[in-house]
Amino acid sequence: MLFEKIGLINDAFEYQKDMYVGVEGDTITYIGTDAPEDAERLGRRYDGTGKVLMPGFYNAHGHSPMSLMRGYGENLPLDRWLNEMIWPFEAKLYRKAVYWSTLLTMAESARFGIVSTSDMYMWPDDMLRAVSVSGEKVNIARCVMNFTGVRPEDNDSFKAMKDTILMYHGFENGRILTDASLHAEYTNDEATIRAVAEYAAEQEVRKHVHVAETASETEGCRERHGGRSPVEYLADMGVFDVPATAAHCVWLTDRDRAILADKGVTVACNPISNLKLVSGICDIKALYDRGVNVAIGTDSVSSNNSLDFFEELKVFALLGKYQSQDPSAMNPQQVLYSATRAGALAQGREDCGLIREGFKADLIVVDLNVPNMQPIHDVTNNLVYSASGKDVLLTMADGRILCENGECLTVDFEQAAAETEVARIRILGQL
Amino acid sequence: MLFEKIGLINDAFEYQKDMYVGVEGDTITYIGTDAPEDAERLGRRYDGTGKVLMPGFYNAHGHSPMSLMRGYGENLPLDRWLNEMIWPFEAKLYRKAVYWSTLLTMAESARFGIVSTSDMYMWPDDMLRAVSVSGEKVNIARCVMNFTGVRPEDNDSFKAMKDTILMYHGFENGRILTDASLHAEYTNDEATIRAVAEYAAEQEVRKHVHVAETASETEGCRERHGGRSPVEYLADMGVFDVPATAAHCVWLTDRDRAILADKGVTVACNPISNLKLVSGICDIKALYDRGVNVAIGTDSVSSNNSLDFFEELKVFALLGKYQSQDPSAMNPQQVLYSATRAGALAQGREDCGLIREGFKADLIVVDLNVPNMQPIHDVTNNLVYSASGKDVLLTMADGRILCENGECLTVDFEQAAAETEVARIRILGQL
Repeated sequence: MLFEKIGLINDAFEYQKDMYVGVEGDTITYIGTDAPEDAERLGRRYDGTGKVLMPGFYNAHGHSPMSLMRGYGENLPLDRWLNEMIWPFEAKLYRKAVYWSTLLTMAESARFGIVSTSDMYMWPDDMLRAVSVSGEKVNIARCVMNFTGVRPEDNDSFKAMKDTILMYHGFENGRILTDASLHAEYTNDEATIRAVAEYAAEQEVRKHVHVAETASETEGCRERHGGRSPVEYLADMGVFDVPATAAHCVWLTDRDRAILADKGVTVACNPISNLKLVSGICDIKALYDRGVNVAIGTDSVSSNNSLDFFEELKVFALLGKYQSQDPSAMNPQQVLYSATRAGALAQGREDCGLIREGFKADLIVVDLNVPNMQPIHDVTNNLVYSASGKDVLLTMADGRILCENGECLTVDFEQAAAETEVARIRILGQL
Repeated sequence: MLFEKIGLINDAFEYQKDMYVGVEGDTITYIGTDAPEDAERLGRRYDGTGKVLMPGFYNAHGHSPMSLMRGYGENLPLDRWLNEMIWPFEAKLYRKAVYWSTLLTMAESARFGIVSTSDMYMWPDDMLRAVSVSGEKVNIARCVMNFTGVRPEDNDSFKAMKDTILMYHGFENGRILTDASLHAEYTNDEATIRAVAEYAAEQEVRKHVHVAETASETEGCRERHGGRSPVEYLADMGVFDVPATAAHCVWLTDRDRAILADKGVTVACNPISNLKLVSGICDIKALYDRGVNVAIGTDSVSSNNSLDFFEELKVFALLGKYQSQDPSAMNPQQVLYSATRAGALAQGREDCGLIREGFKADLIVVDLNVPNMQPIHDVTNNLVYSASGKDVLLTMADGRILCENGECLTVDFEQAAAETEVARIRILGQL
């Protein structure tokens, strides 16, 4: 495939007009100001006039099957929402429900330009079957929760995490990777935290953990662990001795940020979910200033309630300005990097997240020929602050087109919506 | 026109399935669970399957010609942005530039479901010609700035405001109304503030003022006016003795909120602009709790940077939860009311902003048959938190379709974008 006369967000996150980009198989093989001489071998030609090509989005923190609970039990205080609504609903989940709701989530992801997700949940087999059908990438994290004194090796979630890593790491030509995962500090005892850290090091996989999402979690950790913050405590346990993603990180000290930078931990910031659940606002500029790798996540749609990634990165940028009290914070290049390359690196995908020859063809095309994107003083600024999620015209992962002109090509959306509705009615009937 | 088998947000902001809504001329003439017997006289039939009909959006605070400056001079501190970028650019504006950039804004408004704007700027003649072509509604506010000691009656902006009111109030079958307008407390002396208040009372028009947008404005007012807040001072000057819209209201005391409630002032909340310029976060729940009429505005696209109203109302709801530290705040009915009926009332349009027989046909159709809107536990919740701005399938003002299936029907978007680009290049060449 050859994208012709298209605007390009290059690997320095600068805009170049009227470029040619060739894709062969799953790889970007050509970037130039003119068509390559042997353009025919690239097959389909795509007219890029009035459009911009950029790296696809990497969603750094999600819980895909929870689309089934989109808008369920909303506008309740957090404890009632979890105790009365979400956990009872989740207790009734079954394999087919997980499969179809994950597939619906993949349709939504592709529509909004997401090519890969760091996905933490249970039911990995059924989630991965859906991801495999849809053609996206995933770092699946079957998360461990164990705080009742059971030895880690006897705990079901720990066993399931190990199975998932052993079975799936590298599946689908590497599109499917696995992360070791602790749900959080407050949902695991010390033996389990150490066991997960050791297992990740042994298997050479990455790690995905909820960290410092709420003030009460952070205060509780200090009480439980001799005054140490969640970051300090998890660092002491060896959790950050392998590359890790720490989701949320709303409540950090300067010392926490220094540890995250020193250990090379990626922060997955989830700005919309953090507002909606009144968890707080992450100080993104302070993380940037420390040199921390900051990526962007949606969290689940039941606390968001969509996967509109352009909306997510706009709110990310707005809150970064607000929280630092600095309108000059959050330049568009930083924000676009966080939405793409930072997330790819957090997944251990060194050859993803940039438009560069030899890199994987994870690409999206964005429409500039719409009222909200005109006029153009600065394309990168318009992408961050003016684009609508549905200005994404084409989503490609590993060279395969997942969605084009609003139509999902790999997922039968009508069927996924209908089957998810069947599951929704069935589960509600059991509550 | 007859909308058939369509979901409906009724005048209590509740969802009703499979309804029939008839429009004749500019008016909603039929609402029922079946088609009317003489359906033929309504003309076109619109299949509403998988769609929802709701009142169109009322944008309670905008500056339409500033689309010309979308993304111009971004990511600078506020004072440098205004002094070095925006004000020099505005000084080079000319009539044709204002006309085409307003028309571009109207195309964007219609695309995102906005049917009416409370629009404060200069150049009213050229703005109104654009609004007239586009078919939207507007309350135009030619704002007054006078702080150099010139008597109000000798000030050009005051004279222009009076001309605008005398000339245009009620034009286009009432679609065009005029508001008296003070730019703000800090940009007007006491004689001018009193003169505008008196003129509005005399002409029986409403008023539109910037109030308490920033902390420094609010502190400065207290220093200038014997410790009084902007709300207290403007109330003392008689500004709120006619119905008024106070834009922003980020920095309020409980006493301010009581005055606004008592005087029947509408607060036009601009959540995205307030974050982007680091002005602060309005405490929306505290206003709701006081019984203040709260409407939603976009402010200009140069501090937003789009007119995506679904995005605006989502951020409005999220910040309302966050600022009150209450996840149960901001129920979807309140938010949808603020986005529609509250804005219509702020414009003095008693027969607008609700789907009710005899009301003006200001309507939008929203697509439910998209991945981000499935499944549906609660339609109103999905509208507030899950809808994309571009899920708007049809925008109608006074019974006229302005935009359908992504296409602007009243504005030649390509021409508006091209002419705005000509103006942009011309003005940049003079700077």
